[in-house]
Amino acid sequence: MNESTAWGTSCPVPITADSQRITLAHGEGARLTRRLITEIILPRFTSTRKYTHQMSDAARVTTVGCRLAVCADGHTVSPMFFPGGNLGSLSVFGTVNDLVVSGAHARWLTMSMIIEEGLPTAVLEQILDSAASAAEMCGVTIVAGDTKVVPRGHADGLFLTTSGIGEMLEPIPPGPQTIKTGDQILVSGPIGQHGIAVLCVRNGLSFDPLPQSDSRPVIREVTALRNAVGEQIRTIRDATRGGVSAVLQEWAQECSLTFNLRESRIPVSPEVRGASELLGLDPLYVACEGTIVAAVAAESAEIALAALRQIPGCEQSAIIGEVGPREICAVTIQRTLGRPQPLDEPAGAMLPRIC
Amino acid sequence: MNESTAWGTSCPVPITADSQRITLAHGEGARLTRRLITEIILPRFTSTRKYTHQMSDAARVTTVGCRLAVCADGHTVSPMFFPGGNLGSLSVFGTVNDLVVSGAHARWLTMSMIIEEGLPTAVLEQILDSAASAAEMCGVTIVAGDTKVVPRGHADGLFLTTSGIGEMLEPIPPGPQTIKTGDQILVSGPIGQHGIAVLCVRNGLSFDPLPQSDSRPVIREVTALRNAVGEQIRTIRDATRGGVSAVLQEWAQECSLTFNLRESRIPVSPEVRGASELLGLDPLYVACEGTIVAAVAAESAEIALAALRQIPGCEQSAIIGEVGPREICAVTIQRTLGRPQPLDEPAGAMLPRIC
Repeated sequence: MNESTAWGTSCPVPITADSQRITLAHGEGARLTRRLITEIILPRFTSTRKYTHQMSDAARVTTVGCRLAVCADGHTVSPMFFPGGNLGSLSVFGTVNDLVVSGAHARWLTMSMIIEEGLPTAVLEQILDSAASAAEMCGVTIVAGDTKVVPRGHADGLFLTTSGIGEMLEPIPPGPQTIKTGDQILVSGPIGQHGIAVLCVRNGLSFDPLPQSDSRPVIREVTALRNAVGEQIRTIRDATRGGVSAVLQEWAQECSLTFNLRESRIPVSPEVRGASELLGLDPLYVACEGTIVAAVAAESAEIALAALRQIPGCEQSAIIGEVGPREICAVTIQRTLGRPQPLDEPAGAMLPRIC
Repeated sequence: MNESTAWGTSCPVPITADSQRITLAHGEGARLTRRLITEIILPRFTSTRKYTHQMSDAARVTTVGCRLAVCADGHTVSPMFFPGGNLGSLSVFGTVNDLVVSGAHARWLTMSMIIEEGLPTAVLEQILDSAASAAEMCGVTIVAGDTKVVPRGHADGLFLTTSGIGEMLEPIPPGPQTIKTGDQILVSGPIGQHGIAVLCVRNGLSFDPLPQSDSRPVIREVTALRNAVGEQIRTIRDATRGGVSAVLQEWAQECSLTFNLRESRIPVSPEVRGASELLGLDPLYVACEGTIVAAVAAESAEIALAALRQIPGCEQSAIIGEVGPREICAVTIQRTLGRPQPLDEPAGAMLPRIC
């Protein structure tokens, strides 16, 4: 099997997928990741099949008297410190955000550490300090944890795996399968900030100003949408690995419609635009870590947009496209010039280890 | 700071602890692990302080209408396959056991994978198959998961982090702080099986028969104890990293009493005894992965023992010691000859990456 024949034009690095071995592309949130999950992992957990359709960000479980959301996220970002955050805050915000966009009030986290022998204790302390501040900011409690140390060279500094538990709030967004023709697609701010920030610091690229990660909780954004348009929200996601593109590709598969984007409406900061052009990247494929994508009924889209824009830091929220009848491709984009083009789904993304 | 001056006689490898860097000894479940947790991690999560005292195996959280137990465990065992189990089954049983000994009915797991680029897909599949069988055996559902891939050489094959959620059952064992003078200490089977099995296969030691890991769920054991002696149980733990010794050292710190063991009563299989003698290890310090230690009121100890012994595989359950007034050392052992000796708490254990 060679996936490179289906490889999109937007990714600068051709990847040959080898079905016999796991490749970096299996981890980048695009097509190969979905195949790893749907072909290798999920078929093995048959008892979880009833949960499968809602495994996008958090699972919902019901016990006597309460409805919970549960999610898990491993964090291997390299380097551990980047402009706008670090591994500690990222691991808390990432898991909180998975709960929040799933319609839950985030309550508890667990945190497991896999530490490479030789990690300076001061680094661990700084990362944990950031995680603690992030947890406090989000109003969540880290209730359980674990530490493992592996010999030098058998891990890369520190990996943090967080798992989250939240209480489901009403109304629960019904999910991407309920997206309809005419629905509008919103984003809560400039896209691609996190991936570009990590890429620049990893590769010693010095832009001025340096692109900053958007790593932060999306609690205010989701709450504002819920309060403003409540049951008119079809679904919300935070656009992490694979960027906004990956979210829309997944949604398109769920609802069997086509998402038509307008490039001119997509908020991109000057720093990210500059770095992307130099590096040949498309911000639509680059991870955010504090920016949501929402599908909202057409009649409520402007109200939703106004609610988002009132949040400090979300002034650039925008309606970036709308949903149309199913065409040949799942996502199209109207670039500045010419006719709408297909937005390819890459097999892997261009940025390993950005979260 | 040099911990080697306080190093116990039972560990064959002197470890110099360096407070500036994380060492392997920080991960082995003994004194340095406790210091990592109590001095570096817990002080940072001040909002979790109310949970701290019960962080031993699982935290308890209460939401509207239900009481839950929550735990997390990273698994880095090397090699991934060992006699009696593999990384997949181990990661499920380990987390289920943490919930069960905490007094919960294990219900849901999350599973995060950190995969090294180049891992054969067949290996991943085999590990996941084992995890799925283990989950089915335990009646738990894997409800959420995550995958990350890191470049070759930045991890070691596969790390699995599982987090578990269970529903608290009544009565809840009150905890080690309620242990009293005269209480009896039970184990549910031969000790040290897991650590010795992993050590032998890792180092290519060929014993005949090969020591087998005891990796398995302890649901039946805990249920039998609950049904037989209910509120007479002070506390239960599964003796994982650091072995039975680590459990008793922790309990002694909680109840400020001394645990007096009799070596002649401690069940050890001939294979583990033989391997331990050759390798200079004491099975009391070696990890189990399906063997519980329980502190039970004196008057119920024989009933508890009879209940355990009726479980297939637990015929060698034994009362291995009793609790006495606090002496200079926290745990003593009456070896075959001579007076009782202190059972030292090593700074680290002798076996990295056994779970």
